[in-house]
Amino acid sequence: MPISELYLKKSLENFILEDVNFGDLTCDTVLSGERIRAVIITKQKALLAGIDFAMEVFKLLGEVEVIKKLKDGQEVFENETILEIEGDAKAILTGERVALNLIQRLSGIATLTKKLVKALEGSGVKLLDTRKTTPGLRVFEKYAVRVGGGLNHRFGLFDAVMIKDNHKRAVGGVEIALKRAKERAGPFVKIIVEIENLEELELALKIGADVYTLDNFSPEDVKRAVEIKPEGAIYEVSGGINLENVLDYAIKGVDYISSGYITHSAKAIDMSLRVI
Amino acid sequence: MPISELYLKKSLENFILEDVNFGDLTCDTVLSGERIRAVIITKQKALLAGIDFAMEVFKLLGEVEVIKKLKDGQEVFENETILEIEGDAKAILTGERVALNLIQRLSGIATLTKKLVKALEGSGVKLLDTRKTTPGLRVFEKYAVRVGGGLNHRFGLFDAVMIKDNHKRAVGGVEIALKRAKERAGPFVKIIVEIENLEELELALKIGADVYTLDNFSPEDVKRAVEIKPEGAIYEVSGGINLENVLDYAIKGVDYISSGYITHSAKAIDMSLRVI
Amino acid sequence: MPISELYLKKSLENFILEDVNFGDLTCDTVLSGERIRAVIITKQKALLAGIDFAMEVFKLLGEVEVIKKLKDGQEVFENETILEIEGDAKAILTGERVALNLIQRLSGIATLTKKLVKALEGSGVKLLDTRKTTPGLRVFEKYAVRVGGGLNHRFGLFDAVMIKDNHKRAVGGVEIALKRAKERAGPFVKIIVEIENLEELELALKIGADVYTLDNFSPEDVKRAVEIKPEGAIYEVSGGINLENVLDYAIKGVDYISSGYITHSAKAIDMSLRVI
Amino acid sequence: MPISELYLKKSLENFILEDVNFGDLTCDTVLSGERIRAVIITKQKALLAGIDFAMEVFKLLGEVEVIKKLKDGQEVFENETILEIEGDAKAILTGERVALNLIQRLSGIATLTKKLVKALEGSGVKLLDTRKTTPGLRVFEKYAVRVGGGLNHRFGLFDAVMIKDNHKRAVGGVEIALKRAKERAGPFVKIIVEIENLEELELALKIGADVYTLDNFSPEDVKRAVEIKPEGAIYEVSGGINLENVLDYAIKGVDYISSGYITHSAKAIDMSLRVI
Amino acid sequence: MPISELYLKKSLENFILEDVNFGDLTCDTVLSGERIRAVIITKQKALLAGIDFAMEVFKLLGEVEVIKKLKDGQEVFENETILEIEGDAKAILTGERVALNLIQRLSGIATLTKKLVKALEGSGVKLLDTRKTTPGLRVFEKYAVRVGGGLNHRFGLFDAVMIKDNHKRAVGGVEIALKRAKERAGPFVKIIVEIENLEELELALKIGADVYTLDNFSPEDVKRAVEIKPEGAIYEVSGGINLENVLDYAIKGVDYISSGYITHSAKAIDMSLRVI
Amino acid sequence: MPISELYLKKSLENFILEDVNFGDLTCDTVLSGERIRAVIITKQKALLAGIDFAMEVFKLLGEVEVIKKLKDGQEVFENETILEIEGDAKAILTGERVALNLIQRLSGIATLTKKLVKALEGSGVKLLDTRKTTPGLRVFEKYAVRVGGGLNHRFGLFDAVMIKDNHKRAVGGVEIALKRAKERAGPFVKIIVEIENLEELELALKIGADVYTLDNFSPEDVKRAVEIKPEGAIYEVSGGINLENVLDYAIKGVDYISSGYITHSAKAIDMSLRVI
Repeated sequence: MPISELYLKKSLENFILEDVNFGDLTCDTVLSGERIRAVIITKQKALLAGIDFAMEVFKLLGEVEVIKKLKDGQEVFENETILEIEGDAKAILTGERVALNLIQRLSGIATLTKKLVKALEGSGVKLLDTRKTTPGLRVFEKYAVRVGGGLNHRFGLFDAVMIKDNHKRAVGGVEIALKRAKERAGPFVKIIVEIENLEELELALKIGADVYTLDNFSPEDVKRAVEIKPEGAIYEVSGGINLENVLDYAIKGVDYISSGYITHSAKAIDMSLRVI
Repeated sequence: MPISELYLKKSLENFILEDVNFGDLTCDTVLSGERIRAVIITKQKALLAGIDFAMEVFKLLGEVEVIKKLKDGQEVFENETILEIEGDAKAILTGERVALNLIQRLSGIATLTKKLVKALEGSGVKLLDTRKTTPGLRVFEKYAVRVGGGLNHRFGLFDAVMIKDNHKRAVGGVEIALKRAKERAGPFVKIIVEIENLEELELALKIGADVYTLDNFSPEDVKRAVEIKPEGAIYEVSGGINLENVLDYAIKGVDYISSGYITHSAKAIDMSLRVI
Repeated sequence: MPISELYLKKSLENFILEDVNFGDLTCDTVLSGERIRAVIITKQKALLAGIDFAMEVFKLLGEVEVIKKLKDGQEVFENETILEIEGDAKAILTGERVALNLIQRLSGIATLTKKLVKALEGSGVKLLDTRKTTPGLRVFEKYAVRVGGGLNHRFGLFDAVMIKDNHKRAVGGVEIALKRAKERAGPFVKIIVEIENLEELELALKIGADVYTLDNFSPEDVKRAVEIKPEGAIYEVSGGINLENVLDYAIKGVDYISSGYITHSAKAIDMSLRVI
Repeated sequence: MPISELYLKKSLENFILEDVNFGDLTCDTVLSGERIRAVIITKQKALLAGIDFAMEVFKLLGEVEVIKKLKDGQEVFENETILEIEGDAKAILTGERVALNLIQRLSGIATLTKKLVKALEGSGVKLLDTRKTTPGLRVFEKYAVRVGGGLNHRFGLFDAVMIKDNHKRAVGGVEIALKRAKERAGPFVKIIVEIENLEELELALKIGADVYTLDNFSPEDVKRAVEIKPEGAIYEVSGGINLENVLDYAIKGVDYISSGYITHSAKAIDMSLRVI
Repeated sequence: MPISELYLKKSLENFILEDVNFGDLTCDTVLSGERIRAVIITKQKALLAGIDFAMEVFKLLGEVEVIKKLKDGQEVFENETILEIEGDAKAILTGERVALNLIQRLSGIATLTKKLVKALEGSGVKLLDTRKTTPGLRVFEKYAVRVGGGLNHRFGLFDAVMIKDNHKRAVGGVEIALKRAKERAGPFVKIIVEIENLEELELALKIGADVYTLDNFSPEDVKRAVEIKPEGAIYEVSGGINLENVLDYAIKGVDYISSGYITHSAKAIDMSLRVI
Repeated sequence: MPISELYLKKSLENFILEDVNFGDLTCDTVLSGERIRAVIITKQKALLAGIDFAMEVFKLLGEVEVIKKLKDGQEVFENETILEIEGDAKAILTGERVALNLIQRLSGIATLTKKLVKALEGSGVKLLDTRKTTPGLRVFEKYAVRVGGGLNHRFGLFDAVMIKDNHKRAVGGVEIALKRAKERAGPFVKIIVEIENLEELELALKIGADVYTLDNFSPEDVKRAVEIKPEGAIYEVSGGINLENVLDYAIKGVDYISSGYITHSAKAIDMSLRVI
């Protein structure tokens, strides 16, 4: 499982309780112990992500047998069967919406990520996600990015130092911020510094950081930044990257492009659960 | 507050812990007790939703003064100031991303909802949301729909009976499902029945329900359904409704159109927090 | 299960932790791995409710086999066996009190409810519960009401609008309160209005509501209210209803009688667990 | 506060969330920021218990001023004012039911307890509660017993050893059970042994325990037990004690009478909240 | 299990989440579904405690078979095998550190406790623990004390009254404190009074308590206290007891010696998990 | 605050509930609303850590004023005043033990850490902690290490890849493990590889890692490892490091020494709270 068992269980239980609370009034009144067989099928082209999580949702709700017909990372077209579920009708129909909401959103992110990853193919530049994720769903969404071929930037404020423009303004510039970070941060924490212009880049390069994030640079300025890139330095380009402009930034010498677009602007992939 | 205080506090604490966990490594290393003033400003046209939640995020993180310059439901253009925040730099910069992620997504939903609501203006048909929301964020997203002028369908499986196609298939048809529901459901619970075709509609109308959801009907079939609509019956149209086709379904006699599109396909509105 | 699996599990775990906390000192010191067989038997006449919950308590505590000899809704007399439990003595004896406390209280509610339901038999008036339930136990107590033949009023403040006398006083009368509710409430939410006298009833009827709750009316005033009841209106009678006076209010034209008495004044039914 | 602050806060938050969940639909639609003054008044004779908890409920819901007019342990008659609350109408009306449910039930227990305590006055026998409490509410109910003049038996399975009939049956008699308990239990834990007849009492007295609980003894057998009571031994009488028979057991030489009746058979005291 | 199942599960889940959070990056990247066999072996002489808890950690993480080769309370030397674990490599390697941290610390406490218990052997004085335990780990550490042959003092502030020097100072002396405690405490709660000198002891003995804790007495003063010890009184000696001075206090007439040293100064026993 | 506010609050609430549960029986019976002034004073030489956490404990328990007389990181001797607390006696005496347990353990870790840090002074080698911390207390203990002048290794399994001997055995050697990690791990995650001997070091150096942890090397082998250390490589020495042998490993070319000893073998520093 790509997310730790306990973290996953706690998250899914919260998602189920949000929808079901004390009871599913429809299943409780309409059903009488029926057993059914159902499938989850795709209704449009997509890259799948989240199948294992959907399976867990059903298992948390009752005694059902779930068979995985496809795997995360597979590309599908309309009308393909992802899961077969057999067992207590109530477990299946109560879990339907939570399972679909999760897999549809994650597949949407994986699909959009894949598009940017493909656009970058051959350029040597790799795609990163950001922290612009849905509150409460970050670990799931970052997993979907990996399924789509992207790489994960830090998971939160707790696993890397990233000096952003506001930190610099709060303390009076990149030099003081970066020096403090290097002095105080532990040795197992990467230090990333967001750079607003070429002058700032030069200041930062003198002090040194693990990654230099060229934020809202024009492609021209990125090229100039690459010209002064020291051996071993790592450049990340960020700021308003999307499918239209991503290739403008796939400049030789850039190591990573990070994009909030792949998480905050992904649309859910259409799927449905059908009793058969 | 449009969401109950305790529910809101528990949700926001989870969202903050997801991002911050045991500490904000950047603020902890870069800051030294600075006090700052910052604004959240818009970067594109939008209908605002979630401002009060963003304010609460900062208040949960430290001693800050937050001034609301605009209110949920106001339309904004680029470069307008939504909030002014003053106080401990750490509280402000640690809360920045959670606050923005929330307000950006909710404003995205409100903005998209408003577009469909405007399209329906004058038609007498009202817009409803669905349960196709992000896991863990439903109550917030349904609030954003209300800000956008939409109405809320049920909040979960626990506050209305809704007989969907899969329930009917599980028990053997609309008649048995609807009869059971009417017999067993409590008197304070609305009974909604999803209808797949005109024959089924006639069966359902004989038994009676609070709302008939014409699911995936063509506009022509909707018109035929309206022709046989009894006095006092309520029709909801659903299934693949979006900005392109919503007007095709704004047929006289239809009471509600419900759309998962406004929640599952909304894109975040661009905003940013700037230290000034 | 009449309560959703996850909601039930979380509730029962809290109930068990309240009694057991870090350990059962008696079982830990007195037992040495014994296996036993025990029965739960009734000690007085009752209508049973909560058997499945009692079974779950034992299952949460260890490896035991529980056989259900009777079902919720069955009427029992003294000395009847409800459950047989076999297995690890510690699981059984640690769970005894929590299981009994739950089933005894719920059976008390079901038994009292049944008495009122029987009194109303043939009158065409149906019995409703209220929100006058024990904090933390509402969903369980409302289930017991259903077992006793009663119907459930709303489950909380979140699943229906109910305008009570205090709301009217806070805003300045029934008209303004009811108009606001009809304007602002979503379409899937029933609107109930509590009525204090005949004048107020007339005002409310003009505006319209889903249910009119005649609160603390004399039987004579109820009769007058029935005389002006419009076609399709629904009347609920409430306020101090108990076994003594319930028949005075079983007036033709009244749809529901709601009673807090069945939950707040029910006494536990005597039962015991015996090792055999 | 008679219950620790954190335990109380967590309990009350759960009770409020049960009723309010994500929102109070009535307050949200009917109110528009009104400020009100309200009182909680008694509607019948009672001994008050739980006033501080009711106050906390309102404080958890918003900015209100609560003035305590009476204190726990005071006897009241009809129409007395317990609390005055002033402030945001929503906080007051949302908290009304939870606050009342709590104070009504606790006052019911205190009132019933007081009746038994008064019956025992002058007899030298003291009244104890049991673990026959409502799941999730034990600490509150045991507090109400103290308010009523009763004493608390153990709070759970974790703070005393109590060998009951089922433990004896599971291990083969009182001697083995009591010997094991004395050998294995820590020195700061009282050992109570439930006694079923005079023969068993003699066996237990030889081994020794902190308290001997004469369970379901006839008054005659209690007298015989008193005759053989050694200096310093403590006798508790239990089993089916209620208002009718309590005096039969108030026998000289008995130290305590314990009664589940005061918690499992108490009825809520009628009170109401009125906007003034 | 020496700790109740639900309490144990909740504790272990928290311990695991602290270490693993959303994922084990090493196992996720390095492993590919391997199955392994591993052992936990000792690296120094020790008294074992916590084996069952370590087993539970692995079971909470995946499908593994765990075989217990030794039991809590057994004395071991270097290189002995405690547990054999076989199954999914990820479950085993993810759980390794949490399982070891727990068993190493608990064995350290049991080992140190055993040393003091052995020193006291034959003296008739028994060893007690204190509340000087690691926050969040008390129930586990008190279990380790029992394994080492010590007895448990109270578990917390909730299961016994213990009047300490600060209580006496706050209210004005031992007499008023002890009188209040005896008057107000329930009958199932032991009353312990900490004594600072012989004068105070005399005052306390007149009022009476269940246990007299001679705190920071010199051995000479303890002897004087024993001289005036009434029949049936219980003496506990406390304050800075460790391996060096414990025998100085093993004075005839002393019932218990309590030592915070066995929990707050225990060092972890070295053990390791090895894949074989 | 060196730990995020919400994480700290949740942790401290759990620690308090462990000790207090539903109530402090001593304070509830002995106190009658007294107000007191108290100090926390040192009883031995130490480096202080955890003062702010102790302050928070008291603030969570009631209305008290806490004045910090010393700061974390200050060296103290016997009889120095750390905190002055004034206010409700109950808040202060209920919080005493939790506050002391925390500050005593953390100061113990800081003090021991400082000893090793001082030993390494001038050597150019820096001290790191490990994950050998008390379950549930890691974030607190790692803070204490920082106070003592040490640096933090990773916080858990989730914020760095560390290939240990068991991972290598599970997959068949360092080469396959390290290659997989480099291929699959995200770019913002450091990769650390534990090395068992010089041959393995050479294999690992060819593939490359962020840090090479020489585990259980003799000082002689460390010297040989330094001889082949490439420019820019980082060496960490680990395995059984303590005050006695730490200088043997302070070899030029070693970057870090990591020590579980500073957390798993620290003894609590003696302190006490005194009412004055």
